[in-house]
Amino acid sequence: MSSYKVLGDWGTSNLRLFRVQEGRITAHREGPGIGEVGRQAESAFERAIAPWLDDGPPVEIRLCGMAGARDGWVEAPYALCPADAQAWRAAAIRFDWRGTPLSIMAGLTCTGADGVPDVMRGEETQIFGACAAHPELAQGRHLIVLPGTHNKWTLVENGRVAAFRTVPTGEMFALLRDRSTLGPKDATGDADQEAAGFAEGLDRAGDGRLLTSLFAARSMRLRSGKSADWALGYLSGLLIGCEIAEIRATLSHSGDVVLIGDQRLSARYAMALDAQGVGSRLLDGEACALAGLGLMEN
Amino acid sequence: MSSYKVLGDWGTSNLRLFRVQEGRITAHREGPGIGEVGRQAESAFERAIAPWLDDGPPVEIRLCGMAGARDGWVEAPYALCPADAQAWRAAAIRFDWRGTPLSIMAGLTCTGADGVPDVMRGEETQIFGACAAHPELAQGRHLIVLPGTHNKWTLVENGRVAAFRTVPTGEMFALLRDRSTLGPKDATGDADQEAAGFAEGLDRAGDGRLLTSLFAARSMRLRSGKSADWALGYLSGLLIGCEIAEIRATLSHSGDVVLIGDQRLSARYAMALDAQGVGSRLLDGEACALAGLGLMEN
Repeated sequence: MSSYKVLGDWGTSNLRLFRVQEGRITAHREGPGIGEVGRQAESAFERAIAPWLDDGPPVEIRLCGMAGARDGWVEAPYALCPADAQAWRAAAIRFDWRGTPLSIMAGLTCTGADGVPDVMRGEETQIFGACAAHPELAQGRHLIVLPGTHNKWTLVENGRVAAFRTVPTGEMFALLRDRSTLGPKDATGDADQEAAGFAEGLDRAGDGRLLTSLFAARSMRLRSGKSADWALGYLSGLLIGCEIAEIRATLSHSGDVVLIGDQRLSARYAMALDAQGVGSRLLDGEACALAGLGLMEN
Repeated sequence: MSSYKVLGDWGTSNLRLFRVQEGRITAHREGPGIGEVGRQAESAFERAIAPWLDDGPPVEIRLCGMAGARDGWVEAPYALCPADAQAWRAAAIRFDWRGTPLSIMAGLTCTGADGVPDVMRGEETQIFGACAAHPELAQGRHLIVLPGTHNKWTLVENGRVAAFRTVPTGEMFALLRDRSTLGPKDATGDADQEAAGFAEGLDRAGDGRLLTSLFAARSMRLRSGKSADWALGYLSGLLIGCEIAEIRATLSHSGDVVLIGDQRLSARYAMALDAQGVGSRLLDGEACALAGLGLMEN
């Protein structure tokens, strides 16, 4: 039995733990998110890692994400942008957990050109990981986005996170779909209809007028014979299209956008970017997180 | 006991009935909204009006609003814009209810310059009522808005409703306040804090960037010491400010905006319009509805 370390991404919704031996992942376990366990994080972590402890303690543990939030396990600081990987790593909080050195990676904070502060916890690990695994991203200026509930649009300059902006588009879509009078209750999963609605939503988003375009999700059903699936696609296309139009007006950038994360959602962002004449490339979120946690280091 | 007629505004949330004798309101009753009673509308109406029937049947009944929706009492058509008061009145649906002629006023539908259809039911009665009660509104071009859950921004030209656009700003605010991770759960009702947040929201809305400005409701609390009440005001100001900026780009109009409806919410719209250099005047919603239902007619 050779020695092993443990890398983990502990977000609001779930915990993913990886056992690493000689730079390779040899096992994988899941556990509950910080949002569920809160102050009981330590015992939840102990339960999640227990089977591996039978082989002896790991030589090191590194965690990123909401484990370091105020309501997480142990609060880790926010590193101040602009921040490079070295400054970010140095800001991690370290303590001894049953004889094993444990690090919880820092988050990042920045202040926008408009004076508005912003924060991230977890995504920075994927971003620095992307730069470590794809050295071309550590040179020049890149716009990286991690689509999800709260999207983090991030400008990276020569490997440093210069600035970012959180856009809660995924949360808005879920609210509109599940909780509003605009979200259809009778969608059937017709992918063609949804794609047609998505395209029309992207088209309407061209003017950047979100609020005055929302009600069409309902009126086009009432008066133009559009389906529930069309309306769902429309809301998604409208939101994502408006988000991209706003970001392009906020963070000036030319060149392809780097998407990190869920394939299906990222494909939507790629289409929406393309509709505004912007290219994109997709990186795997888990691979980026592991690279950011130091999978490739000794 | 002189003869009487009954005028009523029956919306999604409540029923308001007025007994009118010789052009004056002599009694008033409330009842459940169409959203609650749905297909049981007739019996709900009967219960609401019962005490008056002891004096004999009314000579006429006129209702507006969701009573005429597909899921209401009896479906009334939508009059097509541009529509004047005469064409709109002619489109009402009329039937005999227990010997009394009963009218349910038509809604309105229009198609925007961008090809998007829109609908209203109930607000048109207040708009035509405003023009009847304030003859200066029946001349020239006026932008009228009825702030609420689904705001109806309406262009009236020489007494005709030319076009309108529904903007679900009130619903979006309620979703953000009550259902999102951005809405503070610990507001204390501090009016000064809320007003400061509202002003900052209006200020941020100047760029018309809603999605990229939302997260500040949370990040300004985390990083800039803002309060829960500030955040609530901020969300309100941001939404209303962005709505007005979008409307001004959609419906070209100069001159004061006419606000019809709730005093407190209308005062917020007046502030938001003023912040963008637009004047406004406020009309009473109930008086406009009664005028639209023909209070002043024989």
